[in-house]
Amino acid sequence: MELNLEAKKTLLRKIPHGLFICTVSEGEEINGFTASWVTQGSFNPPLVVMAVRADGSSHGMVNRTKKFCLNVLRSDQKELAAVFFKPQKGLGGRFESTAYTFGELGLPILDDAIGGVECKVINSVEHGDHTVFVAEVLTAVLHNDTEALNLSSTGWSYGG
Amino acid sequence: MELNLEAKKTLLRKIPHGLFICTVSEGEEINGFTASWVTQGSFNPPLVVMAVRADGSSHGMVNRTKKFCLNVLRSDQKELAAVFFKPQKGLGGRFESTAYTFGELGLPILDDAIGGVECKVINSVEHGDHTVFVAEVLTAVLHNDTEALNLSSTGWSYGG
Repeated sequence: MELNLEAKKTLLRKIPHGLFICTVSEGEEINGFTASWVTQGSFNPPLVVMAVRADGSSHGMVNRTKKFCLNVLRSDQKELAAVFFKPQKGLGGRFESTAYTFGELGLPILDDAIGGVECKVINSVEHGDHTVFVAEVLTAVLHNDTEALNLSSTGWSYGG
Repeated sequence: MELNLEAKKTLLRKIPHGLFICTVSEGEEINGFTASWVTQGSFNPPLVVMAVRADGSSHGMVNRTKKFCLNVLRSDQKELAAVFFKPQKGLGGRFESTAYTFGELGLPILDDAIGGVECKVINSVEHGDHTVFVAEVLTAVLHNDTEALNLSSTGWSYGG
């Protein structure tokens, strides 16, 4: 059995994906990264599923603290998503671009985003170059109900 | 800590989702259902993540056989997605609406879809009203590279 790599790539790129800023905190440190591979995982309890690059600095923070905040960006916040994609000099440096307020779980919720959901990791699957985290939504802050950013509208691709 | 249910619903509905027909087979039986909560989970190996209602008849088939095929629908196949949403009289009845060919893993690949990826389940997380399956893409058949159906364009909602 041989996988047709071109067909695989074309088909997987048809899966719609969003663009979120996932924030983490550990002790005095905060960090954040752009996440795209996100889906809902259950209504009751409300679960989200997010795949995170296993080699990133935030990955260990999610693994150790078992919590993260998924910030939903407005459709006009592509530039902010780009800031959180780029390599950074130190933890927290990306937050110079945007104001935030700590939520009840102690995670940064971006003031200028549509809102954020703070989540507690229930379980994870470590198998490939990303780790799949399954997490329960414990708090939700909505700032502004408007159209959200998605990957396809940016012209970027991440997947395949 | 109290979850703001309206904020949670509004924010989770901002996660973009597709509409796929997931097919399963067990012995002589085949079945299929419409899946929406799908994301990629890794590039290498190529993983997909899909949440499946824990009370559906196909759920047990995925759990027992550890395999499924994700069929990517064309943007004009909303009616076919609706057929695979509805309750059915018996296993396999929904396939009267569409022709299919068995793939290398023995799973139905819909002839009229954009294509399908046959997947082997690596792991799963059973925590809420859906089970989260993490699966490796083993085969990919591309029929027709065209625009895919997504949930938001149908006017339906599934999530929140």
